[in-house]
Parts: sequence; structure tokens; C-alpha cells
Amino acid sequence: MTDVLSRRDLDFLLYEWLDVVSLTTRKRFAEHSKDTFDAVLDLSADIAHKHFATHNKKADANEPTMRADGTVEMIPEVKQALDIFSTAGLTAGQFDESVGGMQLPTTVVRAAMTWFQAANPSTAAYPFLTAANASLISTYGTEQQIDDYVRPMLEGRYFGTMCLSEPQAGSSLADITTRALPHGDSYRLTGTKMWISGGEHELSENIVHLVLAKTPGGGAGVKGISLFIVPKFLPGSDGGFTERNDVTLVGLNHKMGNRGTTNTLLSFGDGTHSPYGQAGAIGFLVGEEHRGLAYMFHMMNEARIGVGFGAAALGYAGYLRSLDYAKARPQGRPVGANDPAERAVAIIDHADVRRMLLAQKAYVEGALALGLYCSRLVDEQDTALDKSAATDAGLLLDVLTPIAKSWPSQWCLEANNLAIQVHGGYGYTRDYDVEQFYRDNRLNPIHEGTHGIQGLDLLGRKVAMRDGAGMTLLGSRITEAIERARRLSHHAVRCADELEDVWNRLVDVTDALLSEPDAAAALANSSVYLEAFGHTVVAWIWLEQLTVVGDKDGAFYDGKRAAARYFYTYELSKVGPQIDLLKSMDRTLIDLDPAIL
Amino acid sequence: MTDVLSRRDLDFLLYEWLDVVSLTTRKRFAEHSKDTFDAVLDLSADIAHKHFATHNKKADANEPTMRADGTVEMIPEVKQALDIFSTAGLTAGQFDESVGGMQLPTTVVRAAMTWFQAANPSTAAYPFLTAANASLISTYGTEQQIDDYVRPMLEGRYFGTMCLSEPQAGSSLADITTRALPHGDSYRLTGTKMWISGGEHELSENIVHLVLAKTPGGGAGVKGISLFIVPKFLPGSDGGFTERNDVTLVGLNHKMGNRGTTNTLLSFGDGTHSPYGQAGAIGFLVGEEHRGLAYMFHMMNEARIGVGFGAAALGYAGYLRSLDYAKARPQGRPVGANDPAERAVAIIDHADVRRMLLAQKAYVEGALALGLYCSRLVDEQDTALDKSAATDAGLLLDVLTPIAKSWPSQWCLEANNLAIQVHGGYGYTRDYDVEQFYRDNRLNPIHEGTHGIQGLDLLGRKVAMRDGAGMTLLGSRITEAIERARRLSHHAVRCADELEDVWNRLVDVTDALLSEPDAAAALANSSVYLEAFGHTVVAWIWLEQLTVVGDKDGAFYDGKRAAARYFYTYELSKVGPQIDLLKSMDRTLIDLDPAIL
Repeated sequence: MTDVLSRRDLDFLLYEWLDVVSLTTRKRFAEHSKDTFDAVLDLSADIAHKHFATHNKKADANEPTMRADGTVEMIPEVKQALDIFSTAGLTAGQFDESVGGMQLPTTVVRAAMTWFQAANPSTAAYPFLTAANASLISTYGTEQQIDDYVRPMLEGRYFGTMCLSEPQAGSSLADITTRALPHGDSYRLTGTKMWISGGEHELSENIVHLVLAKTPGGGAGVKGISLFIVPKFLPGSDGGFTERNDVTLVGLNHKMGNRGTTNTLLSFGDGTHSPYGQAGAIGFLVGEEHRGLAYMFHMMNEARIGVGFGAAALGYAGYLRSLDYAKARPQGRPVGANDPAERAVAIIDHADVRRMLLAQKAYVEGALALGLYCSRLVDEQDTALDKSAATDAGLLLDVLTPIAKSWPSQWCLEANNLAIQVHGGYGYTRDYDVEQFYRDNRLNPIHEGTHGIQGLDLLGRKVAMRDGAGMTLLGSRITEAIERARRLSHHAVRCADELEDVWNRLVDVTDALLSEPDAAAALANSSVYLEAFGHTVVAWIWLEQLTVVGDKDGAFYDGKRAAARYFYTYELSKVGPQIDLLKSMDRTLIDLDPAIL
Repeated sequence: MTDVLSRRDLDFLLYEWLDVVSLTTRKRFAEHSKDTFDAVLDLSADIAHKHFATHNKKADANEPTMRADGTVEMIPEVKQALDIFSTAGLTAGQFDESVGGMQLPTTVVRAAMTWFQAANPSTAAYPFLTAANASLISTYGTEQQIDDYVRPMLEGRYFGTMCLSEPQAGSSLADITTRALPHGDSYRLTGTKMWISGGEHELSENIVHLVLAKTPGGGAGVKGISLFIVPKFLPGSDGGFTERNDVTLVGLNHKMGNRGTTNTLLSFGDGTHSPYGQAGAIGFLVGEEHRGLAYMFHMMNEARIGVGFGAAALGYAGYLRSLDYAKARPQGRPVGANDPAERAVAIIDHADVRRMLLAQKAYVEGALALGLYCSRLVDEQDTALDKSAATDAGLLLDVLTPIAKSWPSQWCLEANNLAIQVHGGYGYTRDYDVEQFYRDNRLNPIHEGTHGIQGLDLLGRKVAMRDGAGMTLLGSRITEAIERARRLSHHAVRCADELEDVWNRLVDVTDALLSEPDAAAALANSSVYLEAFGHTVVAWIWLEQLTVVGDKDGAFYDGKRAAARYFYTYELSKVGPQIDLLKSMDRTLIDLDPAIL
């Protein structure tokens, strides 16, 4: 079976570019070395290939079903794989040793986890959600909450969920209606939560739901939102977590892809169960009342970068599959050599197939590199010795997060589209993996904030915040890369010039949009802005890679140069018309009378 | 239930723009009138909504299965719908009255059939393939073949297939290995055919396979290919078609979408059946030996335009679904009005949702208009009084066919992508129709010649043929439209100017590519050329519509103006960088060493 990801590329990104080994000089990572990083990467690749990839197709074809008693049935391979994952300690990769973690850099953990996202995103979703949940409680929860929930989650005994959306409130969390009323030292919750991944299953002893709900006195909209731990099982009279809380599975969502993950509609406090003989689902406040959304957004930024990694991972897996196929499949003859007596060539010899392969390579390697760059910023934010370096990393991360989420979701889905196309009719059948990758990847532009939401976040908030400090900082990083490229690599000079030009135009149009007095007009094309910004950022990421590649010899480096060349030649040029459109402050969308559609 | 297509738009295109009523002055259509055209459109819409749309989802969820005895099981609704379709005479819409047809213009038949392609493309595929098959036999077959096969197909008693591809020969028909050896007044065929839609089922009394096979003496490659009628049932001793021919179902293909159509791997002459006690599948030559591919290409051009209609139809259905959803779904508040005490607005009030709706409208209405324009050319080619008008129509049709196939396949798939995005998470579930549209539509860039094949056809053949006569003719039509627009509609002047500029640049780069001595270099980016050409052609089609719309009042016309404005503002600008790339004769693809990927 083809690998789902390239270890050589990960080594290049982690060691040659991002120099993660230098992180071992930081106190937090002092116990680590290149050897321990390699070990976790090797272990992840091995488990991902042997235990996750092997049931990816089966889980897609046999999605979880709801039994009459409200429990969920699924194929046994999911639990088998997750038990191996948990036993290997992988849920706890980046957590403190004090709570049972490996205290690894985020960058290394993300790279390791990408193997699982490429091999089987549906099964990987369970521990990923659990780690995100545990991270949140370990940051804002009490010692008791950490002991009760974080430790068993990191051991893989409990799994976690994030309960934000409701049927009537997806992107608009201000409109959630789940209520929590104080009752003694806990709260009673009532309401319905939609799109809850991992909301019900029998994969773990307990499920720790993190639930957004409104408590009295917090004001309207998001201000009234608090965050609660609502475990499926509460402490029972025997000391164990045996008392069933009033969280009930109402139904499973049936999706185009990502079918292996239970995705649920959950009811809280509808009286199906009455824990301790009382009404309402019992929840425990995390942190302070009415700060729930801020806590959740701590997790949300990580989750958004995680979505980008997921998209990149599927794109990568599809690229490698279609590359193998293109090398093996004979069909047709070169232009001008149509003698049918001659043997057919492999389709990789056709220019258009090469275009589709190079496009995929440029998208997926660009996306993976962007994700790892952002992860490196997380490590910098968390452990930089110099406080201003940490602040800068956080600021840059804020600006880049909507790109790290949206760009891979758009372009690695397109990569999967091309992977199918390389396979021709075969790629459209379920006998080949690429059709599933395409279906699975279609989720990524939707969840954790749609494409449109990311555009509003970028243009309406991130580039404007602190008087444009994030934008300025990004500009200085890009300028540094341009100057470095001009000094170090003759291959990169043309790219440096082009990037400089596009970046200057992007800064210019950003200024124009931010000084537009009519906010609705300024934001009307924020998705176009997001896409122009994204291509520019990824061009910079490719320039960074080119600079590291320099004039080094070898097929791997030649491949990097070819993909960068492709990106600058075929992709970056798309940005010009987008910037022109933005500059024109076109009013087509806002002046539209919806009645005419 | 939302309509799957807009009758108002069809009326606009057929009557206000393409003036199909004027065709009734032609002898072939003299029996017809606007009333008969309307009647077939009404009937089609009615049957499509009542009998096809109603099992589209069910057929997707319950794809045909192969029984142990080699027959196929499918849901009964398919046959029920097809019986109604056949009884209404719809298979025979454009056929001569002499063979039982309605002798309708192609343009009207295509418009009518679009209702079925939008309502349920999988079920519609059976009669569509049958009509294409019947058209081919009625053109090149003998009177006896017409009596034996065409008449029962047009009555809906027999269904037809097209057997071109083989497992090792998809795009490259030169490499087919199915053999036909003469034997008395018929032939014996042996070989395997792949991707055969409708290859086995019990929907009809007989299945008429049209099979490409190589006969001795024709030379290598495509020159040796002949065309055969290979019926599932041959004439038996009782006079009926009761003798089982040696055509055997080997397996069904399981696809991402289009699941309701049986798609088969068929074996010919493997000895499973021995008709009349003899070996080999019995086939009857159509026309002359070694001219099979030319006959098939007669059908292929129609089939390619049909694929474009199929893509447009699914795009249209998705657009209308997402439009309804966007008007009904409340979520969020306008920019600058974030008071949570205010009611949420319908999502159609958000600029980015409007962008996604206008993009869909511009794509799907543009694609439908392009398909109908091409169909009008078919009618002109078939019935123009003036011979040079008929020749011109055929020439223009040749140039436009790769666009009519590829452009809708690319952009109406993107429309379905946007339709999902408008629905948010709901659109990704199988509870809503749009996820199926997206899966179904993904087939269209693959079958009947992939996207890459269309690019080679356009740049390598169509724009060069007859010293560029097709390109010149297209140019004169575009120039006429530009001049008409400048005279008639003040809304269209800006569009006319922009189109003129882009068209001139396209002509310019076409000349440069055609005079490039290195054919491989000239054709390296033929897919990019195809896309630039496609957007330019659709811009022209929108200008044509704008000219008809003129300054007319009313929501419908306002909608057309808004979609045209969208297309020119957001879409046509994409062509510039593509032309620049083509002009640079970039060698990234052809110089690539595949070993570095």
C-alpha cells in the first residue's frame, strides 16, 4: 500500500526548515531530542498504516448506527485502533508530564498526528477531540476537574466532545438556547446540541462533554455563555463514575463523508435519565460564569489549524495515490507519436496529468508546511525565552489562523478532485481510495467556521486588530523571506520579486478596505480577500521552502523546486484579478435585491 | 418540493433568445407550433417531478446489485418511471415520424430532457443512451436493422448501450482488443467492455449493445475499428427475440454517484451462452467495416453536449435548492448590527451567501444557455434552407462541442459545491439533496472524454481545422453580439468592451500556439487554454442574453442582469492570467522529470 504521507517531506519541514531540534534548548522540551521526535513520528506512521488505514474504507462503508436503546453500534476495528493509539500514549503527546503527557512540542505532535488524519480521519477524530477537550479543561479547570477528567482522557479511558452548535444556531453562537441553572455546587442543563462528533459510542468508559450554555445574568447573546463539563457518567455511590447523566442520543447525522465518526444530535436534560433522581443534565462550571465563549475560542483556534491539517492530510494521501497510479497506468502516446504499434506510455508522460500532479503537490505540500509553520508559532508563543518573541508569535498566529483553516480546506479538496481526475473513471469508483478522500475532505470548508466566516474573521478582525500590528508583522516576515531568498538561492529570485509585488498590492488593498467608511461594503468580498490572502501566504511559504532547498542536489529538492515553480507560475497569478476586484469596491453583492434571484 | 429547473428561464432561452418557433417554417418541423413545444416541455416537467425526482434519493441509497445468476436487481421505481416516459413517447422526440418519432427540433427536445437530467440523471440515463443508440443505427444502419432495433427502442421496449471502453483502453480507443471475425452474414465477437451504462437490467425486453471491435485487415489502431449491433437477445426459432446472445455481466461498478444507473463490466463471447449452439457473441455490422470510430463520433459529439446538459441540470437543481434554503434559514445579523436581541436575518442577506448564489446562477444559466445554443446549431445544421448556413452551423458546433462538454462539467460541479456551502453542515448530510447532486455531477468531467481530452480536442484539432475557419466563424458571431449589445442595451456596453478585449487576446494567443513549431510545447497547457476559452465563450453567451434582456422590466430580467454582471465582474477576469501563462509558452510541465515527484 502507498504511504499516506511523506516522511521525507516531514523531515525536511521539521528539521531542515523549522529547526524543531532547537526547541530542545527550551526548558519545557529539555528531555527531548531529535531521537525522541523521530521515535514519535515513526511510531505514528506505523500505527496509522497498520491500524488506521486498514479500516478506513470499511468504516466508510459501514457507518455507525443507532440501536433502539439509544446506544451506537460500529465496526470493532475502530476501538481496536484507538486502544492501540491510547496505549502508545499518543493522546497526551503535547501535555505536561505532570498530567501524564509526553511534553512534546506542538509542531512535532501535529506532524505525528497528520499520519492519522491521512490514514483515517474518522477514527482519528475521537482522540483529537479528546485532546482538545483535555487541553481546555487543563487550562481553565480546577485541579479536581483535571484529576477527574483530564487524566482519564489522556490515558484514553475517557473520550471528550465539544458541544457548541444547536439546530438553529450553527455559525451564530449568540443564538444558542441551551440553559444552565445553578443548583448547589453544580448546574442543571437543558437543551439540544447538533453536529456533536463522538457524542455517543462505547469506545471509552465515559464521555466528557464540554457544553456551551447560557446562565442567568450574563446579558444577551454571547455574553451570557458559560462553559460546562457534562460527563455521560457521574460519580456514583460506589465511588466510580457509574451514575448515568441525562445526556441522550436523539439521532445520528448521515454525511457524505467522514462517516466513521459518530456525529450526533444530543439532548441534555430531557428527563430520559434522572441522575441522582433529579431533573436536568448535571454540569460543572469551567472557570468563571459568562466567559465560556472566550475559553472555547482558545480551543477553536487550535481546532481550526487542526482542520487545515486534516485537509492537507487527505490532499497528501490523494496526491500520493494518484502519483502511483499515474506512474503505473499505461494509456495513450506522446503528442506527435500516435503509432498504435508503439507501446502506450504511462499517463505521467502526458502534460495534463503532470499539471494535475504538480498542482496537487503544490497544494498539499504548501498546506502541510503552512500548518507546521503555525504550529511552530504555537511552540514559540508557549516557550519563547523572550517575551516579545512570544507575543509576536501569538499575533502572527492570530492573523494566519483563518488562512491555515480555509486555504487547505479549499485547495486540498481541489487536490482530491484532481486525484480522482488522474484516475479517470476508476477514480470515481469506490474501488479506489481517492473518491472517499474527496467526500471526506468536503467537510473541511464547513466545520469549525465556514469559509465565509474565516473571511470575515480575517478582514473584519485579524488584519485590523491592534492597528494592523498583525499585518505589519506578517509583512516583515515576508520581507525577510524575500531578502533571504534573494541572497541564498538563485532559483528563488524570480519568485521573490513576484511575491514582493503581490504582497505590496495586498497591503495596499487592505488599507483601502480598512479605511472604507461603509463596513458592509468593505466586507462584501471578504471571501475573495481570504482567497487572495491565502494564495499570497502560501506563495511565501513556498518561498521559505525554496530558500531552504537552495541549490541542493537530489530528486527531493528538484521536486520542491518544481512544485514552487508551478505554484508561482500557475497559482499566484490568480491573485491579481482578485485584488483588482477588491480595489473596485464592487457593490454587486450588497446592492442585490434577493427577490430577483 | 422545489422545481428542479426554471420553466421561465427555458421560455426565455427558447422563445425570447433562440426563437425556436421560427423553426416551424422549416419543412421538417412544419407540423409543430409553440403549442406543441410547450406541451412537450410541460409534459416533461410533470413526469420528471412526479416520477423521476421522487425516487432519485432512493435509487442513490439502493444501488443495483448483481444476483448470483448474473442478472441485476434494482428498485421497482426505475421501471415504473421509464414505462411512463416511454409511453409518453419521449424517447423518440427528435426522430422522424416515419420511425415513430415526434420530429421535434433538437433544441426543444434537449430543453425537455433537461428536466429529467435535473430530476434524476441515473434513471434518465437509460432512455438517453437508447435514443443515442437509435440515432446512430437509424443514420448508418440498414432498413432491417432499423425495423429490428430502432423501432422497438423508440417504443421503449428495447434499451440501448454504447460499448467503447475496455479495462485497459479508456481514452485511448486505438488500444481496444475486442475482436470481431466474420462468420456468414454476421460476426463473432470476443472481448471485454468496461464502464457500460445500462449494460444489464430487466427494464426492457432486450438490450441493444453497440460495440466497437477490431476486424481483420483494417490496419493498426483506430483504423481497424468497426461497429456492431450485439443484441442481448437474438431472433429465436419462434420468430421472437428469445435466443440468448453471449453477452455476460461480469460485474457492476460502484461509483461515488450516479448510482441508480447500472454500470457494468461485460464479457462478449466468453462461452457463458452459446447462441444457436455456436461460440462467440453474435454481432451485426453497422455500415461499412473499419469505419466504426467515425460512426461512433457522430454519436460522441451529441453525447458530449448531453454531458454538458447533465452537468448544467444538476447545477441548476442545486442552485434552486440552495436559493430556497438561503431565503428560509435564519442565521446571524447584518454587518454592524450585532444586537442579539434583534431577530436573526435569512442567510440570503449575508453578502457571501449572495456571492455563492450569484455564482451558481451565472454558472448554471450560462451552461444551460450554451447547451441550447449548441442544440440550435444542430437544428440549423440539419434543416437550414441555405446550405452554407448549415455548413457554418456544423463548423461552429465542432468548435463549441469541447466547451459545451467541459465548461458545465467544471463550473456546474463548482455550483453544486457552493450549493452545499450555502446549506452549511446540513448540506453535507444525506438529508439534503445537494450532497447527492455534487457526487452525481463529479462524473461529468470524466466520461465521454475527460477534461484533458477536451483541451487537446479544442487546441489540437478544433481551432486549427480548415485553417482556423471555426475560430474565425466564432469570432464573427462574437463580434456581431458585441455590436448588437452596444446598439441595444446600455447595460451591456461595459460587458461588450470587456469581451472584445478578452476575445482579441484569445485570438492572439491561439495564433501564437498554432504557430509554435514544437507541438508538445504548444499543447502542454491545453487544459488551461480550454478553461480560458470556456470562460470567454460563456461571457459571450451572457452577452447574448443581456442583449435580449435589454432594458426590459421585471424581476426575471433583473436577475439576468445581476448574473451577467456577476460573471463579468468575478469570472471573466480569471482569463487574463491564463492567457498570459499560455503566451509565455511555459515549459514547466514538459520539462518535468517525473522521477522527482
